[in-house]
Amino acid sequence: MSIITLTSDYGLKDHFVGALKGKILSEYSEAKIIDISHEIDPFNTVEASYIISASYASFPKGTVHLIGVDMEHNKENQHIVMQWNDHYFIASDNGILSMLSQKIVPQKIVAINIHDRLPSDAADMDVFVTVACHLAKGGLMNVIGKEINTIKQVTDLKAVLSADGNSINGHVIYIDHFGNVVTNISKKYFIEVAKGRPYEIVMKTKNIKTILPNYSAIASSDKYPIKSYEGEKLAIFNEAGFLEIAIFRSNPSKVGSANSLLGLNYRDVINIVFS
Amino acid sequence: MSIITLTSDYGLKDHFVGALKGKILSEYSEAKIIDISHEIDPFNTVEASYIISASYASFPKGTVHLIGVDMEHNKENQHIVMQWNDHYFIASDNGILSMLSQKIVPQKIVAINIHDRLPSDAADMDVFVTVACHLAKGGLMNVIGKEINTIKQVTDLKAVLSADGNSINGHVIYIDHFGNVVTNISKKYFIEVAKGRPYEIVMKTKNIKTILPNYSAIASSDKYPIKSYEGEKLAIFNEAGFLEIAIFRSNPSKVGSANSLLGLNYRDVINIVFS
Amino acid sequence: MSIITLTSDYGLKDHFVGALKGKILSEYSEAKIIDISHEIDPFNTVEASYIISASYASFPKGTVHLIGVDMEHNKENQHIVMQWNDHYFIASDNGILSMLSQKIVPQKIVAINIHDRLPSDAADMDVFVTVACHLAKGGLMNVIGKEINTIKQVTDLKAVLSADGNSINGHVIYIDHFGNVVTNISKKYFIEVAKGRPYEIVMKTKNIKTILPNYSAIASSDKYPIKSYEGEKLAIFNEAGFLEIAIFRSNPSKVGSANSLLGLNYRDVINIVFS
Repeated sequence: MSIITLTSDYGLKDHFVGALKGKILSEYSEAKIIDISHEIDPFNTVEASYIISASYASFPKGTVHLIGVDMEHNKENQHIVMQWNDHYFIASDNGILSMLSQKIVPQKIVAINIHDRLPSDAADMDVFVTVACHLAKGGLMNVIGKEINTIKQVTDLKAVLSADGNSINGHVIYIDHFGNVVTNISKKYFIEVAKGRPYEIVMKTKNIKTILPNYSAIASSDKYPIKSYEGEKLAIFNEAGFLEIAIFRSNPSKVGSANSLLGLNYRDVINIVFS
Repeated sequence: MSIITLTSDYGLKDHFVGALKGKILSEYSEAKIIDISHEIDPFNTVEASYIISASYASFPKGTVHLIGVDMEHNKENQHIVMQWNDHYFIASDNGILSMLSQKIVPQKIVAINIHDRLPSDAADMDVFVTVACHLAKGGLMNVIGKEINTIKQVTDLKAVLSADGNSINGHVIYIDHFGNVVTNISKKYFIEVAKGRPYEIVMKTKNIKTILPNYSAIASSDKYPIKSYEGEKLAIFNEAGFLEIAIFRSNPSKVGSANSLLGLNYRDVINIVFS
Repeated sequence: MSIITLTSDYGLKDHFVGALKGKILSEYSEAKIIDISHEIDPFNTVEASYIISASYASFPKGTVHLIGVDMEHNKENQHIVMQWNDHYFIASDNGILSMLSQKIVPQKIVAINIHDRLPSDAADMDVFVTVACHLAKGGLMNVIGKEINTIKQVTDLKAVLSADGNSINGHVIYIDHFGNVVTNISKKYFIEVAKGRPYEIVMKTKNIKTILPNYSAIASSDKYPIKSYEGEKLAIFNEAGFLEIAIFRSNPSKVGSANSLLGLNYRDVINIVFS
């Protein structure tokens, strides 16, 4: 029995998430359902990509991830399942899964073709529910779809190396609950490119010279209590493996955050310059 | 073993929802609990009615729905259980269940009378927990209440036919997470009244001439990408079976929604006029 | 098999809560996980204390409570487990558990010392997950920590008696979803001190002379419908046993609340004066 995770832009006020769980349990009463997030910015496939990419590895292999963002089946986007790194991802083929497939080649991809087998008033979500239950029960991908070789790519998700090889050019892909700013620069890519060279993180207004191992490391001197460092800016590689710019112990609604204090917004440029 | 669903206006910041689940699991450790919504507008029984009405059918028959909105037991409102369409609904008799009972006659209704059997410091929620666990375990309604024949009606929930039979007069009963505006005009009632006549949806400022089968159907021409239709207004019957006025791919906080762009608010009039 | 509850300031938009559950289920697939709150004000240990203190008793004995607020392991705060009133609490030793230990002496406290046994890239949350699963499976505290005798105290959490014994001096420790204002004055302490004397609750602007048994008791006369009492201020001891100042059927975003209408904010003084 596999876990089914849910990620969507449905919000928590409406009945959609509850109804979705009811449908899953109606079809598969033993299902173990875990919410990842339902507060994805509406129709924002980049946010959904990041959230899935940052969380899938915390679940056991074989987990089925249902992604309900911009999922309407239409002339441009078909429904797909991607088996990748021993997890299953059900989504619309709108670029949402390309952040994963850029890192590791998928094991298998199918275009879902069960739409005709469902009642005529079945909604897109009903298709995903049927597929998720089928896979969570251990069903085969070929039963619910036709194998395909490629998925749509969203290229602007990737950080790139400058022509002279002396800087990684990235940008902000996510702003979290604490107002911390997450970039598309991965630790893996940084290490590969840096080769031990000194570096500086160059942002809109202020720069940072060191990437810390964790937030508390900002409290570098034993002479002062940790509290005295609150409000200082810092950079770390977060648990998802991406460069994050943070304000130590930030509280967005009270004292401000990296987002508000450093003026960093979604899609803003952040570079690492080597010397 | 039945599912217990929870719908309330408790919000998710406080401990109430967690404590409620703890109480259920203390009494019935095998309970399967699913949240429908805890973000109902405080004391708004119309919103609660719509959310329950729109979601109950996604759950298996026998599901127990606990509704914690305006639930204090007082001289005006008693606690009731309604068995309806093979589901159980536990609520205060404040009109919340009348949206359901207007469509189909309830199978059985009881006024809960176990208050004296609980500890003297038991809260209203403790009563609901005891009843929910009893029913989810397969217990009989007569054990926890005395049969009654009617519940309080909230009449303004119903869309009505104009005197000349040429228009359905409804109003906004819910605004969802995407800012889409839901009316109290059901698809069933529309078909019954329309009898194939041409119609126009008449709103505050702008009218709509067609009810689409789904959101993407707004992209009527193959010449243009779907993206070019973002921001257009449309009407559909939503999954709950009610007329909904939407902005295609709306994002309330960024580009606006049916609620903000068309100036449609809770209780505003929306009519369908036949010609 | 015990329940694991989660309380944090992670919010629900990010993937952290989902990832945390994935990690727990990866380590202990049978775990029963219940959210208490993830909307604690960031790094606010007083709020976390109140929420835990108000909700733990709704869960069965043996429940494991994981508290992810200000939990980074650093030179000032170690990770601890406190066994108290037959429940287990996993937290950083930053004062969060002192509200509990002031009421009843803990059964056992250990400083977690498994950090060296985990992979070198393990995050603080991984430590808590391992400890929570160990305890939920029935494991012993001594296996994962070294016994200690005391935890850090946060003294300003306690209401105090005035020098002349004629007033209890408390303050606001929490503002709930309905805008109701919760103080640190417990019913137990009030009864102990009052000894039947007349009293008055003295606040910033207006006073209240009676503590009601429940919200609806504000509707004291049978001549008027309960609705006519909406908006009146009242005081009760809430389910958690603390003095609460409320506006009857308040809706913070529409008509206002005790917080907005009475101008009562976090840390404001509220006294009970005896005569």
